[in-house]
Amino acid sequence: MRNKKEKHDKPDNAAAYSRRRFLKQGAALVTGAAAAGLAQGVAAQGLAGQPWERVYGAAFTRYGQPSRFEQPVMRHIRLRYGDLTPGSGVALAPIESLEGIITPSSLHNIRSHSGTPDIDPKQHQLLLHGLVARPLTFSMESLWRYPMTTRTVFLECSGNSGSALAPEPMQVPAGVIHGNIACTEWTGVPLRMLLEEAGLQPQAKWLLAEGADSAHMSRSIPIEKALDDAMIALFQNGERLRPEQGYPVRLLLPGWEGNTSVKWLRRLKATEGPTHTKDETSKYTDPLPDGRALQFTFEMGVKSVITRPSSTMTLPRPGFYEISGIAWSGAGRIRRVEVSADGGATWVDAALTGEERPKCLVRFRLPWEWTGQAAVLQSRATDEKGQVQPVRKAWLAQYSPAMAYHNNSIVSWAVGADGSVKNVYV
Amino acid sequence: MRNKKEKHDKPDNAAAYSRRRFLKQGAALVTGAAAAGLAQGVAAQGLAGQPWERVYGAAFTRYGQPSRFEQPVMRHIRLRYGDLTPGSGVALAPIESLEGIITPSSLHNIRSHSGTPDIDPKQHQLLLHGLVARPLTFSMESLWRYPMTTRTVFLECSGNSGSALAPEPMQVPAGVIHGNIACTEWTGVPLRMLLEEAGLQPQAKWLLAEGADSAHMSRSIPIEKALDDAMIALFQNGERLRPEQGYPVRLLLPGWEGNTSVKWLRRLKATEGPTHTKDETSKYTDPLPDGRALQFTFEMGVKSVITRPSSTMTLPRPGFYEISGIAWSGAGRIRRVEVSADGGATWVDAALTGEERPKCLVRFRLPWEWTGQAAVLQSRATDEKGQVQPVRKAWLAQYSPAMAYHNNSIVSWAVGADGSVKNVYV
Repeated sequence: MRNKKEKHDKPDNAAAYSRRRFLKQGAALVTGAAAAGLAQGVAAQGLAGQPWERVYGAAFTRYGQPSRFEQPVMRHIRLRYGDLTPGSGVALAPIESLEGIITPSSLHNIRSHSGTPDIDPKQHQLLLHGLVARPLTFSMESLWRYPMTTRTVFLECSGNSGSALAPEPMQVPAGVIHGNIACTEWTGVPLRMLLEEAGLQPQAKWLLAEGADSAHMSRSIPIEKALDDAMIALFQNGERLRPEQGYPVRLLLPGWEGNTSVKWLRRLKATEGPTHTKDETSKYTDPLPDGRALQFTFEMGVKSVITRPSSTMTLPRPGFYEISGIAWSGAGRIRRVEVSADGGATWVDAALTGEERPKCLVRFRLPWEWTGQAAVLQSRATDEKGQVQPVRKAWLAQYSPAMAYHNNSIVSWAVGADGSVKNVYV
Repeated sequence: MRNKKEKHDKPDNAAAYSRRRFLKQGAALVTGAAAAGLAQGVAAQGLAGQPWERVYGAAFTRYGQPSRFEQPVMRHIRLRYGDLTPGSGVALAPIESLEGIITPSSLHNIRSHSGTPDIDPKQHQLLLHGLVARPLTFSMESLWRYPMTTRTVFLECSGNSGSALAPEPMQVPAGVIHGNIACTEWTGVPLRMLLEEAGLQPQAKWLLAEGADSAHMSRSIPIEKALDDAMIALFQNGERLRPEQGYPVRLLLPGWEGNTSVKWLRRLKATEGPTHTKDETSKYTDPLPDGRALQFTFEMGVKSVITRPSSTMTLPRPGFYEISGIAWSGAGRIRRVEVSADGGATWVDAALTGEERPKCLVRFRLPWEWTGQAAVLQSRATDEKGQVQPVRKAWLAQYSPAMAYHNNSIVSWAVGADGSVKNVYV
């Protein structure tokens, strides 16, 4: 995976990323620098007060919303067949505008096949049948009485970053290409508990999971995953699931491609083999160079992307910036994220937040001094299994040109001498 | 703090909380129990499909909202002077309807003194002055270029649970009494970094923090806290702060009473002593039995509350339930939460989620069998400093009857033979 001869953490390079140097020169970041005369002027201005300090503020809201100044921060919608199918396709998280690890549920990425069903939770039921001793059906009220668990995990569509396979690099915000990923706190009932109650028969090796959308989106799930960390999810970020994320109940398979976490879950059927549903034969297979295709490639690869600065942004002037981004792996914890400002020739370790949690987004950060010269920013994640995010060419060589899923290759943003940030293929 | 003679984890008591027994009898929780004939009937019903499975679903939304069936889950608003001041008072999180640890920003508790200002982030500035070598002013754009940190912490109003001091126990949902608490992921610039850049003078021992609301809500902060874990917060749960939580910038003092995390922050002034602002003399002091009052009691005590089942709920029938609640401490991590179903005579340890994070909400859970007899449910938290949540009488004995802040005493919910859950004083 590491094609280029590279140097690591070399002293002359490290200076550009130094937090100490950042602090020493930090005064350049604030308006007008540090003269006592200026500070007095600013103080007078600040204390005179702004218009909103002179009027009584707005009333409380019972369910809050963002500031009107933040309304441009919205999901990027890409419909499957345009306006003919306003609820089919993808809605991507605006990762270029977000910080931290948690994605607000309102901006969680969406992949749906036939729009968002309007489900009455009092009428919806979950059926568990097939190769079980006791077929069971659960109302939402009955699920509330089971012991629950809480866990923060990412959900990534297997088609995320498929747009980065276009012949020419798209000059769009990072979220339009790489935003089919989000990370929220999920609470629900361990699926293992319900399967044990139903009494799985020994020949049950797979589960069919089926949604209550009009597409009846369905996937086959190996029983090992169902008995491991699968969750029947009822809550997201503290409140009940949002309609577009599967209200009132969804399957949650941590670390696996998002479509297997079947939304609006209405049925789980224990079977001997996979069901080969329309969704897992017409889609979600991985074509290889020799004409064959891989099926049931569930686990999402190790991956990272720099969100700030990123494509379509502009650095207003040379000086210090913080490089910030997200990393994740379906195999477990992120152990390391390295950042390069020279297209992969040299790398520096970034600081991580959230790396203690497996299958969860990690935020990485690195102070960086932009000297005003052209630069190519990249990030490279390594997970606890030792898997390293591949370079673009190495990833492409694994698959047929028709492959559109599981693109976890290194992302490159070029900073021009004018401060413009562009999407490039390196 | 432990007034009653008590037994712990005794074997005959433990059976009522057994997860194994829960699983064995778990079939009672699902509709109709486990007969093959029923399962077939249910299967036929389930597969026939609901109305929403027969129509194409709703279009994607660019900024999602809860299901229409969840609209009753809203903040509880209690205005200071009724409709005269629609943005002054408190709006409490509906903790009785939430799960997990994260509070969605839309339901975060609010305490404001003059409504929510409508601040233009391009016009707002933060002034740092007083006993510093270099007075500085920061635009929001300039703050974005500083290194940031991310941390999940609770924010509790010091007046939370003040309503539990009413002469008679209020029969209202748990959030109306104990919901002036929330927990979100915050991202921003360490305050220490800005103070170092400005060059604190040796005699600077306090900071005055002032908001840009029309009340200019102001508090005095010891410099030790400002140099420890104080944050200039810009993001909450991934997105920019909500207006009601301080947009575009607030101070965040983890573990301290919420009003010290000054919202809409416009000014920090380094001073020799506390400023004794109107907000910290007319309010936020703790009257003692002898007529004196404690001032600057910043740290929030160790505390817990059972959210499910809780006041105004009803248990539909005897059987297994999960007791679920939240615990927290301003002093650091939660080490233990015990649950009693007999008004504090016997206690059992609950399972914890999130206890690795200091000054953060912890979710505790315990399976419980309700036999149909009257019961009194309580929870008792212990933090890593060894502090234990006090019983109500012990807490009351510390203060004047006029005391309305920092009530962290044990909460009691009585379950009646009819399954009704009532707020009681024990």
